[in-house]
Amino acid sequence: MNILIIGAAGMLGRKLTHSLVADGELGGKAISRMKLADVVAPEKPGGSSIGFDIAAVDISDPAVAARLIADRPDIIFHLAAIVSGEAELDFDKGYAINLDGTRYLLEAIRQASAKEPYCPRLVFTSSIAVFGAPFPDKISDEFFTTPRTSYGTQKAIGELLLADYSRRGFVDGVGIRMPTVCIRPGKPNKAASGFFSSILREPLVGQEAVLPVDENVRHWHVSPRSAVRFLKQAAAMDTAVLGSRRNLNMPGLSATVGEQIEALRRAAGEKAVKLIRREPDPLIIEMVDGWAKDFDASRAKTLGFAAESSFDEIIRVHIEDELSGRIGV
Amino acid sequence: MNILIIGAAGMLGRKLTHSLVADGELGGKAISRMKLADVVAPEKPGGSSIGFDIAAVDISDPAVAARLIADRPDIIFHLAAIVSGEAELDFDKGYAINLDGTRYLLEAIRQASAKEPYCPRLVFTSSIAVFGAPFPDKISDEFFTTPRTSYGTQKAIGELLLADYSRRGFVDGVGIRMPTVCIRPGKPNKAASGFFSSILREPLVGQEAVLPVDENVRHWHVSPRSAVRFLKQAAAMDTAVLGSRRNLNMPGLSATVGEQIEALRRAAGEKAVKLIRREPDPLIIEMVDGWAKDFDASRAKTLGFAAESSFDEIIRVHIEDELSGRIGV
Repeated sequence: MNILIIGAAGMLGRKLTHSLVADGELGGKAISRMKLADVVAPEKPGGSSIGFDIAAVDISDPAVAARLIADRPDIIFHLAAIVSGEAELDFDKGYAINLDGTRYLLEAIRQASAKEPYCPRLVFTSSIAVFGAPFPDKISDEFFTTPRTSYGTQKAIGELLLADYSRRGFVDGVGIRMPTVCIRPGKPNKAASGFFSSILREPLVGQEAVLPVDENVRHWHVSPRSAVRFLKQAAAMDTAVLGSRRNLNMPGLSATVGEQIEALRRAAGEKAVKLIRREPDPLIIEMVDGWAKDFDASRAKTLGFAAESSFDEIIRVHIEDELSGRIGV
Repeated sequence: MNILIIGAAGMLGRKLTHSLVADGELGGKAISRMKLADVVAPEKPGGSSIGFDIAAVDISDPAVAARLIADRPDIIFHLAAIVSGEAELDFDKGYAINLDGTRYLLEAIRQASAKEPYCPRLVFTSSIAVFGAPFPDKISDEFFTTPRTSYGTQKAIGELLLADYSRRGFVDGVGIRMPTVCIRPGKPNKAASGFFSSILREPLVGQEAVLPVDENVRHWHVSPRSAVRFLKQAAAMDTAVLGSRRNLNMPGLSATVGEQIEALRRAAGEKAVKLIRREPDPLIIEMVDGWAKDFDASRAKTLGFAAESSFDEIIRVHIEDELSGRIGV
């Protein structure tokens, strides 16, 4: 089996790569080749018999997608995106990467399938940013998409294209609407949602973090470990059950910032909590106010997707996967 | 006031043009100029002091939109589209006109607004084809868009772009999801929904019509007269009340083909009904099966949009507007 990961240098891309290399297989089929693509060259994993190709590419270049799929990968993970904050600041760049980049990929697959039968599984990472306030208490699987960011708009368009290209038989697509991934390891990125991770990640290693919103802000979270599992499940699942509805709300954990902080207190004590500095940011407050807070996600749950059920669990996953089991506060 | 109509040679475009010329004003402001654009040159209306420009253009040409809006129209009606049947048969053409054409228009407006403040009202005709089965009995204003045609996909994408460009302040957009316009005057077009009109229009003038589906097929209709009124209302309405949700389900009449035929019998007798020839068409049956049947539309109703309440009324409108008040059977 031949796998292509677009966006392989990002946080989820790296974790997915490592997980697939560790598994050596996907859906019961051995992985023979992997192509890792991103705007910067992804690192080549060592200690594996899998053949790796590394590609540093700009997916907003119309010619790139055809080269990426030239060896007809069986499974394509499309994770590459300009994140919400940056797509809001740079209108053109967001549309070029998030909309055009996705459309070029779908078109390249369609053109390839016109020459010789080809219908790869394409796992598209969408986002809960496709939804925009006002919301019901729990967002149902049939709630409409009225994004309040350009990023959310671009993801919603990607979903529609994915569904139409799948319906026409050009690709076998699954779109998964990721909750906010928390705790994101590493450095903050430009995502406006970054503080949800930062207020736990930094204090867990004895560093200060900034909280730009109120403690009563509620949001929808999933650990990186579950997010990677979602991607692999979406790649291996039977898509016949999806019909023409190819985009799924993933399960997650609905929690307030206050509940996050209480879990931090239980895991690392008052000393850690004291490292959170309140610094309200009107721009972030306004953006976050338009974001989804809680979901039903019953369709995905029925299909076997499952997430964490407490922030204690999410913090434990972070301590295990990122801190070698030790808190540094 | 300066008005641009893109798609002015189509059925709705011509009716809208005539209606605006007859009114001489829109939203209380006198119309001084009108630019009528379409892929074939729209007819120039006579007997009016309004200055007309006529443009035969291909909106899938990236350079066209900037020329169309060069004189900064206050109101733009974007009615141009490849219809459902044709967009399904010609994948590239549907995406080129319905997606790229709409995006080029929005981009041209954005580029113009970057040079000098400009934020025209843009009325975008969307369609109930943005929805795809299975449906609830009545589709609510918050139901999700899972189109089952490429046309519906392209319209749903147009809606998302319209909302994002409006949110960013580049344009003042209103998207209206038209019910199927019935009775369409003139010749059949390539829309798969054409028979809904044909089974009434042809018998009313003593001609045969083909019915490709069952009598129990239920669908969502509006007269051309109401459709034109919707367009004018959308152009003149206060958009502040829409917030970030710029796309509206228009009101309509939910009726079965059997109910249409009963209304025809009441209007024109058994002789007219006998002119309907049953000829099941599997392709049309399958497409129509995925279409919306009934809507709540309460948001648009609250905003003052109203449609017909019986097929007797829809037939009467057709006889008045198209047949000079006389049935020809």
